Amino acid sequence: MEITRRNFKESLGAVYGAVEEADFLAIDGEFSGISDGPSVSALTNGMDTPEERYAKLRKHSMDFLLFQFGLCTFRYDQAQSKYLTKSFNFYIFPKPFSRTSPDIKFICQSSSIDFLASQGFDFNKVFRSGIPYLNQDEEAQLREQYEERRNQMNGSGTPSYISPLSGKGPVNVPDEHKDFINRVVEKVEALLNNSEKTVDLEPCSGFQRKLIFQTLNWKYPKGLHVETVETEKKERFIQVSKVDEEERRRIEQQKQEREQEELNDAVGFSRVIHAISKSGKLVVGHNMLLDVMHTIHQFYCPLPEVTMSCIDCGVRLLDTKLMASTQPFKDLITNTSLAELEKQLKEKPFKAPKVGCSEGFQCYDTAAEQLHEAGYDAYITGLCFVSMANYLGSFLTPPRAHISARSKLIEPFYNKLFLMRVVDIPYLNISGPDLQPKRDHVLYVTFPKEWKTSDLYQLFSAFGNIQVSWIDDTSAFVSLSQLEQVQIAMNTSQYAESYRIQTYADYMQSKQKSTSKNRKWAEDGWANTTCSHMHNRSLTGKRSISPTQEDQTSDFGVADSNWSHYTKKIKTDGEVEFVVFCSFCLCSNIAFISREAAVSTSPAQGEAGSEEADAWPELPANQNQGKKS
Amino acid sequence: MEITRRNFKESLGAVYGAVEEADFLAIDGEFSGISDGPSVSALTNGMDTPEERYAKLRKHSMDFLLFQFGLCTFRYDQAQSKYLTKSFNFYIFPKPFSRTSPDIKFICQSSSIDFLASQGFDFNKVFRSGIPYLNQDEEAQLREQYEERRNQMNGSGTPSYISPLSGKGPVNVPDEHKDFINRVVEKVEALLNNSEKTVDLEPCSGFQRKLIFQTLNWKYPKGLHVETVETEKKERFIQVSKVDEEERRRIEQQKQEREQEELNDAVGFSRVIHAISKSGKLVVGHNMLLDVMHTIHQFYCPLPEVTMSCIDCGVRLLDTKLMASTQPFKDLITNTSLAELEKQLKEKPFKAPKVGCSEGFQCYDTAAEQLHEAGYDAYITGLCFVSMANYLGSFLTPPRAHISARSKLIEPFYNKLFLMRVVDIPYLNISGPDLQPKRDHVLYVTFPKEWKTSDLYQLFSAFGNIQVSWIDDTSAFVSLSQLEQVQIAMNTSQYAESYRIQTYADYMQSKQKSTSKNRKWAEDGWANTTCSHMHNRSLTGKRSISPTQEDQTSDFGVADSNWSHYTKKIKTDGEVEFVVFCSFCLCSNIAFISREAAVSTSPAQGEAGSEEADAWPELPANQNQGKKS
Repeated sequence: MEITRRNFKESLGAVYGAVEEADFLAIDGEFSGISDGPSVSALTNGMDTPEERYAKLRKHSMDFLLFQFGLCTFRYDQAQSKYLTKSFNFYIFPKPFSRTSPDIKFICQSSSIDFLASQGFDFNKVFRSGIPYLNQDEEAQLREQYEERRNQMNGSGTPSYISPLSGKGPVNVPDEHKDFINRVVEKVEALLNNSEKTVDLEPCSGFQRKLIFQTLNWKYPKGLHVETVETEKKERFIQVSKVDEEERRRIEQQKQEREQEELNDAVGFSRVIHAISKSGKLVVGHNMLLDVMHTIHQFYCPLPEVTMSCIDCGVRLLDTKLMASTQPFKDLITNTSLAELEKQLKEKPFKAPKVGCSEGFQCYDTAAEQLHEAGYDAYITGLCFVSMANYLGSFLTPPRAHISARSKLIEPFYNKLFLMRVVDIPYLNISGPDLQPKRDHVLYVTFPKEWKTSDLYQLFSAFGNIQVSWIDDTSAFVSLSQLEQVQIAMNTSQYAESYRIQTYADYMQSKQKSTSKNRKWAEDGWANTTCSHMHNRSLTGKRSISPTQEDQTSDFGVADSNWSHYTKKIKTDGEVEFVVFCSFCLCSNIAFISREAAVSTSPAQGEAGSEEADAWPELPANQNQGKKS
Repeated sequence: MEITRRNFKESLGAVYGAVEEADFLAIDGEFSGISDGPSVSALTNGMDTPEERYAKLRKHSMDFLLFQFGLCTFRYDQAQSKYLTKSFNFYIFPKPFSRTSPDIKFICQSSSIDFLASQGFDFNKVFRSGIPYLNQDEEAQLREQYEERRNQMNGSGTPSYISPLSGKGPVNVPDEHKDFINRVVEKVEALLNNSEKTVDLEPCSGFQRKLIFQTLNWKYPKGLHVETVETEKKERFIQVSKVDEEERRRIEQQKQEREQEELNDAVGFSRVIHAISKSGKLVVGHNMLLDVMHTIHQFYCPLPEVTMSCIDCGVRLLDTKLMASTQPFKDLITNTSLAELEKQLKEKPFKAPKVGCSEGFQCYDTAAEQLHEAGYDAYITGLCFVSMANYLGSFLTPPRAHISARSKLIEPFYNKLFLMRVVDIPYLNISGPDLQPKRDHVLYVTFPKEWKTSDLYQLFSAFGNIQVSWIDDTSAFVSLSQLEQVQIAMNTSQYAESYRIQTYADYMQSKQKSTSKNRKWAEDGWANTTCSHMHNRSLTGKRSISPTQEDQTSDFGVADSNWSHYTKKIKTDGEVEFVVFCSFCLCSNIAFISREAAVSTSPAQGEAGSEEADAWPELPANQNQGKKS
C-alpha cells in the first residue's frame, strides 16, 4: 500500500492494526545520500571500531533525508501454515505545516539521487505528497506553543517573555494605538448592549491584535469569546462573541480538539514509528544500521554523542545481513546483498517461505524485482529472515519447518547491527558491550598525499601479503600477515623521510588522548540531545567489559571455526525449541543457549562465556577496495 | 524549448545560434533553497551593507542547487518592428559522469521545495534527466587527468606522484606479480612473431594493469598499441595491438577526439554559460543577485571572499526589479514582483511590447502564467525590460516607440543588482563603488532572546515612529525618526539591565575590528578561489571612494526626488538617442549622460558628478516584517 499525505490519515488505522497483529515487522529506508564528508570508502574504513563507525555515520550521514520508509508486517497464519504480509510504502517529506514551523534543510548526494533515479524512484511523489513528521522535541515545542496561545487567549497565562515596560494591571497601550483600542472597546460595549451575538473587528496588525486580546481579557474577564479569524485573502481580524460560561467551554473544547488534530497532523509519520516502537515487536532490517540511526534521528531525537543503546527501549532489532554473515549461514551464502540473498534463500538447503498477502493489500512479485522501493525491500528482507529462521529449525530433533519470530533460536541475533566492511568486527552491539579484536599486526601509516595503494604494496612488498584500509589522503591502516613483521617494519621506518609508521596500539592511545581533550565539549553538546530512549555509554566503561581474544592465530586476526564443531542437538520439548550450541561464535558474543540451560546454569552454558575461537562473518571480497586502488 | 541531457547535445547549436543573433538575453534560475542558516528575514536585514549582504548570501545560499535555468533570447526584427524570442528551459543536475568524478552534495530547503512542488515543478525531470556541468577548476582537473593518463599510456609522462621504492629504468615488479607479468611478456612476444593483429590479456586488477602498461612501454617503446577495454560485465582487461607509427597516431587521434567529446559532455551546461558570457550581450534578470551568484559559483568558480566585480569580464547585467524601483518607474509601479510588474507594464502609460516567437519555438502565453518555470520567468523578465526601455523613449523629442538594448538610455542601469529589503541602499554595484548611506539615526540594540518586535516598539514608544530590522534572536537595528533622539536613547539605556544600545557607527567600528582580526584566515581561503573573472576588492579601498551624502534630510535617510526635475530633452540625432539628464539619482550613481556630453565634457556633465539629492527606489511595504512581527 502506497501512503502519501493524501491518504495518510485514513490509512493510519490499517497501519496500527497491521503492526498490532504482526509476529514481526520488516523495515527499509531510502535516503537522499550517504556521506556528506569523506568518500564512502573512507567513511567505512576496514579498521573502524564500532564506536568510530557510529561517530562517523552520526557526523556525516544524518543531514540526509530518509524520504521513503518501507514497512512490511508478517503475521503467521497457523491454519494456512503461512505468513500473511501487509506492505506499506511511505513517502516522507518535512513539509512546513505553518509559517512558524521548522524549515528543515537536508542534503542530497548526487550519486545517491542518480542511483535512485535510475531505479525509477518517484521524487515528485516525495516532494509533492510526502508525509510530514516531527521529532519529540519539535512535538513538545508545538504542544507548548498551543498551550501558551490558549493561556494568552484566556488571559490566564504569564507570557514566556518579560516586556521591559509592561507592568501588571491595565494594559500598557502605546500612544499611537490608543485611539484604535478605544474604538474597539466602544464596539464591544455596543455589542454587550445590543441583541447581536458577534461583532467582527477590522483587520489589523499582529501587535494590535495582541493589544486587543490583552485589553478585552482585562476589561471583560467573563462573558466574551475573542478569536482571530482569517479571511480567504489571508487577512486576519478579530471576532468577538457574547457567550455564557457553558458555551465558552464548548467553544474552548472544540478548539482544543481542532488543535489536537493539527498537532497529530504535524507529528505525522512519526506516529507510525511510535507505534512500531511501542509494539515491542521484532523489527527486521537488512544492513540496517543507517536505517535505525536515521529513524531515531528524524522521528525521535538527535542521536547521542557516543553510541546508542536500546537496552531499555524494549525494541528488538534483527539485521538479516549480519545473520546471513554468521554461521551456520556464512558458509552457505556467498553474497549477502539483499537481492542475491533473497535468491539464494529460495534454493537448497533453504526453502522459499510460504507467504500470501493479506486481503486488500497488493502482493509484491519477487520475480519483478522492484528493488529499492522501500516497501519491496522490507518485504524481501522479511522473506530472508523467515527462510533463515526456518533453516535453524532443521537442526532440531525432530526438525521443524516453521520457526516463530519469538523463538529462542533467533535471540542470539538480536540488536546486533551489521558493520559494513569492517575487517574483524562484524557488528555494532546495541544491547551489550562491543567486540574488541586484537590488532597487534596492524600498522598506522602516514605518507604524502600523492601515494596510492600500489605505493603501500611496494613499501611492504618484502612482507608478502598485506591488507590496506584507507583512512584519508595521507594515512591508512596496513595489516601485516605475520606478527613478527611489525617490529621489522617499525625499525625500517626510522630512516624513512616520506612516510611514518605507528603500531595500532600507539595510534589508538594518542587518538584517545586527543579525544579526551575534546571531551568537555562533547559532553556539553550531549546535554542538549538527551532523549528518553537513548543511553550514553562511556568509552572506557564499554571497553573494560569487552571479551578478550587471546587465541587468535590466523592471518588478519580472523580465526575460522566451523559451526558443526560446536552444535549439539537435543530433543524438542513440546512447543519450545531447546538447543544447546556449546560455544558458537563466542567472540562475536552470539551464543545459542537453551532456556533450560540458562535456568540451570549447566556446564555447557558456563563454557559459552569462556575464550574460544571465533567465527567471523565472511567479508565481501571487495571490502578493501579503497578509493585509490 | 525544454532541454534535458537527453536532447542537450543536439540542441546546443540552436542555443549558440540564438545567443549569437540576440539583441539581449533574459535569464532566470530556480534553486533548491535560499538560506541554510538564518531565516530569510534575518538573511536580508534592512540595514545590511551591500558587502554584508553579499557575504551572507555567499555563506548561506551557495550550497543549494540551481536546478532549472531559463534563457530567453530577444532579437529585434526591424521589418516586423517586433522582438522575436527563443525560450530555453534547462534542467540541471550534477550527475556524476564517472567513478572518479566529483560527487556533488547540495542542500534542499523544505519550504522552497514545497513551494516549487505547489507550482507543479517537475523534480523527476531534474534528477532523472538534468544536464551535468563542471566549473572551471573541475574542467581543468578532468583535462589534466586525461592528459596524465595519455602520457602514462605513452610511457612519456612523469607520474604526478613519487613512489617510494620505484626507481628509473626497468619497472619494479613486486615478487608476487612477477610470474603474471612474465606470462604477459611471453604473450606479447608471441604476438610480435605471429600473424595475429591483437591479443586480449586476461582480466586483472588495476595495479596489475599499471604494471603491464609500464612494462610494455619500457620493453616495446614502439610498434604496440596498449589499451584497457571493458567487457559488458564491467571487467577490465588489456588489449595489445601491433601497429605501425601511422596507425598508432591515428588510433591516438581517435582516442583524443573521443576524450574531448567526453570532456565536453562533462562540462555540459557550463558551455551554455560560457557562450552567454563570451557573447558580451546584455543579460537581463529580475531580482537577479542570487541568480548571478549561483551561476558564477556553479558554472565558473567559487565566489570571491569580498564582493565580486565584473569590470573586466565584459558582461553587462540589468536587473528589472532595480529598474522598476528607480525613477521614472518608481512612481508609476506599485508592486515590483515579477508577475505584478509584467501586468502593470501592459497598462498605460506603458505599452505591452510587440513580440512573436521564432519559428520552431514554443510561444509562452502570458495569460496562462506559467510562473516559476525558469524559461517563462526569463521570458516575461525580457518583456518587462522591453516595456520599460521603450517607455524611456517617450522622453525623447520626438518620442520613439522602440529603444534598442544598446541604447545609452539604459546604460545607467547596468551592473546594479537589486538588494532585497535594504532600507536605504537600492543595489549592489558590480562595476563601481557601492553606496554608503548615513545611518546616524540608527541604533544597534541587544536584548534577551524572548523579546519580540512589540517589545522594541514599547521600549522606544516615547520616540514616535521607529523602524526595526532584526539581526538575530537577541539583536536588531532600530531606526529613529529624528536624529536628536539618538542621544536621549543612549542616555536612557545607561541604566537599563536587560538591553544595551550602541550607535550604528560604534557598532560598525567594533565589527570591523573583529573582522580584521579574522582577515588572515579569509585571505588564506581566498587564495584558493581565484578565478579569472573575479576581482577581489578591498573593504577599505572600496569605502574611501564612495560618494558621500551630506544632504539627507528626510526620515530614514531616504531622500526623495522627482525624475522630472532633472530631465532635459534634447533633439535626437539620426539613429542615436542623445539625452542629458543633468543629475538623475546621483547618489545611486545612475546618471544619464549623453555620448556627446561625455566627449565634450560639457558643464552639464560636470555637474552629474556632484552631490545632490537622490532618488531611492520605493521599498516594498512589508520590507521590515521580520520573523517576530
